Amino acid sequence: MSKQALPVLPPDQGCCAPMARRPLGETDAAELSRMFKALSDPVRLRLLSLIASYEGGEACVCDLTGPFDVSQPTISHHLKVLREAGLVDSERRGTWVYYWVLPAALNRLSTLLQAPVPPRVHT
Amino acid sequence: MSKQALPVLPPDQGCCAPMARRPLGETDAAELSRMFKALSDPVRLRLLSLIASYEGGEACVCDLTGPFDVSQPTISHHLKVLREAGLVDSERRGTWVYYWVLPAALNRLSTLLQAPVPPRVHT
Repeated sequence: MSKQALPVLPPDQGCCAPMARRPLGETDAAELSRMFKALSDPVRLRLLSLIASYEGGEACVCDLTGPFDVSQPTISHHLKVLREAGLVDSERRGTWVYYWVLPAALNRLSTLLQAPVPPRVHT
Repeated sequence: MSKQALPVLPPDQGCCAPMARRPLGETDAAELSRMFKALSDPVRLRLLSLIASYEGGEACVCDLTGPFDVSQPTISHHLKVLREAGLVDSERRGTWVYYWVLPAALNRLSTLLQAPVPPRVHT
């Protein structure tokens, strides 16, 4: 049996097409706008980037307070918002909670925002 | 002179690296969170997707009210928010204003959100 080239995208990417390809429906727009709302705060955005870039792919909550000039409860609130938006997940292990990003969610947003290709007249 | 392979990214992509590669600084996070805030409303998100996917790459404001159950002034307000966030630009021609997306801005956000590669343990 010969090996076949793997498809670039799984077959059911209807939810995740670039917006430049077709307009969003109401349901998708409602769901996606909630995810973008979670990214609309600078501290949450930095928190998410810190988790995403953390060595090993996950970060202990004990490492996430230091870089910010806000209280631990505020960080915890922001992490909860990111989790409820489906952008990160977490697990308690002993004393600490560990966070990691959910790649499928990030990639969904990333694909959605791909600019029109080929480039239009305007830049 | 031999041809060299083109780099995947232009040399000065410091502003636009995936967040999974390195954490965002305060200045970038503040700027980017404003762009995400513009995307945090479902009507604005649908408006942007309508403009992005419009035949020819630009949409007359006269074509942007029909699909929505909100007033023309509300649409105009949302378009202003998208423009002030640097996601679209516009131009008046005669009676109507025409809107188009700014590909560099969309691609900046799209690149920022690319998930960690290779995939981590969690999915």
